Amino acid sequence: MRKRQIILNADEIPKQWYNILADIKMNPPLGPDGNPVSPDQLAPVFPMNLIEQEVSDQRWIDIPDEVLDVLSLWRPAPLVRAYNLEKALGTPAHIYYKNETVSPAGSHKPNTAVPQAYYNKVFGIKKITTETGAGQWGSALSFACSQFGLECKVFMVRISFDQKPYRKSMMAAWGGKCIPSPSTETKAGREALERDPDTPGSLGIAISEAIEAAVTDESGETRYSLGSVLNHVMLHQTIIGLEAKKQMEIAGEYPDIIIGCAGGGSNFAGLAFPFVHDKINGKQIEIYPVEPAGCPTLTRAPFVYDHGDTARYTPLLPMYSLGHAFVPPPVHAGGLRYHGMAPTVSQLVNEGMLTARSVGQQKAYEAGVLVARSEGIIPAPETTHALACVVEEALKAKEEGKEKVILFNWSGHGLLDLAAYDAFFEGNIKDFAQTDEELEASEKIFADFPKPANIKSR
Amino acid sequence: MRKRQIILNADEIPKQWYNILADIKMNPPLGPDGNPVSPDQLAPVFPMNLIEQEVSDQRWIDIPDEVLDVLSLWRPAPLVRAYNLEKALGTPAHIYYKNETVSPAGSHKPNTAVPQAYYNKVFGIKKITTETGAGQWGSALSFACSQFGLECKVFMVRISFDQKPYRKSMMAAWGGKCIPSPSTETKAGREALERDPDTPGSLGIAISEAIEAAVTDESGETRYSLGSVLNHVMLHQTIIGLEAKKQMEIAGEYPDIIIGCAGGGSNFAGLAFPFVHDKINGKQIEIYPVEPAGCPTLTRAPFVYDHGDTARYTPLLPMYSLGHAFVPPPVHAGGLRYHGMAPTVSQLVNEGMLTARSVGQQKAYEAGVLVARSEGIIPAPETTHALACVVEEALKAKEEGKEKVILFNWSGHGLLDLAAYDAFFEGNIKDFAQTDEELEASEKIFADFPKPANIKSR
Repeated sequence: MRKRQIILNADEIPKQWYNILADIKMNPPLGPDGNPVSPDQLAPVFPMNLIEQEVSDQRWIDIPDEVLDVLSLWRPAPLVRAYNLEKALGTPAHIYYKNETVSPAGSHKPNTAVPQAYYNKVFGIKKITTETGAGQWGSALSFACSQFGLECKVFMVRISFDQKPYRKSMMAAWGGKCIPSPSTETKAGREALERDPDTPGSLGIAISEAIEAAVTDESGETRYSLGSVLNHVMLHQTIIGLEAKKQMEIAGEYPDIIIGCAGGGSNFAGLAFPFVHDKINGKQIEIYPVEPAGCPTLTRAPFVYDHGDTARYTPLLPMYSLGHAFVPPPVHAGGLRYHGMAPTVSQLVNEGMLTARSVGQQKAYEAGVLVARSEGIIPAPETTHALACVVEEALKAKEEGKEKVILFNWSGHGLLDLAAYDAFFEGNIKDFAQTDEELEASEKIFADFPKPANIKSR
Repeated sequence: MRKRQIILNADEIPKQWYNILADIKMNPPLGPDGNPVSPDQLAPVFPMNLIEQEVSDQRWIDIPDEVLDVLSLWRPAPLVRAYNLEKALGTPAHIYYKNETVSPAGSHKPNTAVPQAYYNKVFGIKKITTETGAGQWGSALSFACSQFGLECKVFMVRISFDQKPYRKSMMAAWGGKCIPSPSTETKAGREALERDPDTPGSLGIAISEAIEAAVTDESGETRYSLGSVLNHVMLHQTIIGLEAKKQMEIAGEYPDIIIGCAGGGSNFAGLAFPFVHDKINGKQIEIYPVEPAGCPTLTRAPFVYDHGDTARYTPLLPMYSLGHAFVPPPVHAGGLRYHGMAPTVSQLVNEGMLTARSVGQQKAYEAGVLVARSEGIIPAPETTHALACVVEEALKAKEEGKEKVILFNWSGHGLLDLAAYDAFFEGNIKDFAQTDEELEASEKIFADFPKPANIKSR
């Protein structure tokens, strides 16, 4: 009997996260005065223990036992050899995926939601606010808060809130409260509604709302939590790649190609960074973050200093950005609708360690259905973007007659996103793209900001 | 670090199913002439290889390699110690659950969908028809058919079709076709609509439609598949209990109490039967099938010969039955809305090996939310009925100060059933019950049928 799942024992769960900051040199985030932002300036937004993690350059960071205890409900997660997909494509490539759909929330997001809730709890925080795109992050944080007895409030991008009504119910089942963004509850939300009462919303706006709701709570017991982009989020997600390395070793293989979808960058980084460490040390690997063609941050935007949110509450982050006021078109993969990108992922793309790709929705769903019917799990819309790239690389290997080893991250299942599949079967999936002029116009917004140092332009 | 999940290695997946028919004596199913039904009479409905399994009394039956290959995508499934639930209840009981939510379809149903699709394929069948209540079974069979390249057509009970619109999309993602039942496509459906144009539908009607659609297909390449009730379905599900036995042994415990929800009986039997074997051989175990109070087959109906479907296409089965025309009230747990019960489960209840329980919806959802917030996974409405019983038994153990070991089957997740949770939070969950007079009226329908032998009356 061939072995499809490669499963680690309970005691083989990684006990430390890998911190990429030990291996790359970054531009610092800047405060409103243009100087590097200090931990104290972030204190109203995040608990200090997470801020310390955000700025740490220690290569290995211990995972607290209380966090491992919750993660061990579904981790170690399986590594799966996609034999049926290989057969469907007739490719000599060996395709493996890390199955992150097995968490209670159905995605990789709890990998950071759990430690974030834990560190907030330890710091004495009672309530966490956040934003969510497709709803994966808001669900994950609601779950994590329920594990540690914290309140959770989620601002959900309006188009996703409308497209995916059951995300709200899911958060409610775990005790989380979810409202559509922009809302009238915050100044940032009210301003966004004034600019465009019919706006589909964006992650940039929802982040502004969630930060504002946290810092304006006078009890001092509320903090904000971000599900992607920041260094400590990437750190927490590396448990994916660290497990995958052990599992690939058991399979007796090493990946030639690593693929993950990228919106803010966290599921991609989680799988890729432990392998980036190897690449920095000389290994030959192609590593592809894949974004939607309708929100082409890594593939078409410049590397700049820009805010992470629309209302400019966050520090200036060194990253590829379409401009903090950019409202991405309503692609179904709500988790990929973000104007910026994790600074760490951005930096590695700029250094040529990663090669960014983009795909249109139509191609993504075609791959999604093919893979659902061969491998069984129905992929989240975000994951389908990675799958389109996997299919392309597997067919390329077939053309070249090469037995390449492809590893990708199955970041989530699509059971809360089935309306998108309906749209696909009805022929109602649109491919979005911006003209160069449109992108230039939206990028004007950071023209006067400081420029990051030692950065190659396109 | 405490061990929450007990995971078996890939090669520890059971290679044989356990057949309870080796250990109990049953009344035979009867044909239209009142005589035991012959395999040939079933041949237009099922492929002969499955009919042979249906009537086999061999204790151990080999699982084909091709079936194990597909099951190994998610099996062996985890056994989980519910530490957080124990803590939330303050009980000295040790609570374990078998996590059947990890399959691509999100429930235990693929355990039999996969072998059924396989045996049909081997027999040369091209298309399978079936019914589905909540949609778990229709999804599972669509998935299984996609794995073996078969067509799949699903008649879905109308109330569930309306309550759970994304079930249809899920089946479509795997290439399955789902239509609401009663439909106008079959004689049985048209008659049901004539009797009551506003009927919520029932499993009994949907089964009739699916059987009719199979046997009237003149190509001879279509067969029908049932997701519960029949002997071969119970057989395939025993992989759950066989894994659980190995895992409990690893945990160094043996259950005092076993609990599963029961509609047609399959997830319950899957966990319980391998332990029933031990009980027959002298082990002390309490085993509880739990049904909704609104559809009280095991707890209030008589043990009789009755049809499995409304249009009386099936043989007469020896079982507890509310009458084949009984239309259960619209409880959210669509998978438990069935007038009958697996003959094997019925027989064991009648012999006192199992003790049937029933719970109302309100209590079920209260338990469901408590467990979602402690153990993380959002339970399917069906599973919440088992959970209500688990909570009751755990609190009883607390009262008695006894360290009892409770094992239950987490049959599915509720991610496609979130509207039911909305109803619960809005206070719109109804508790249904029939009066004795109502039950007597609906049970008149089998008054003239033959009576099963050696059966105790209530």
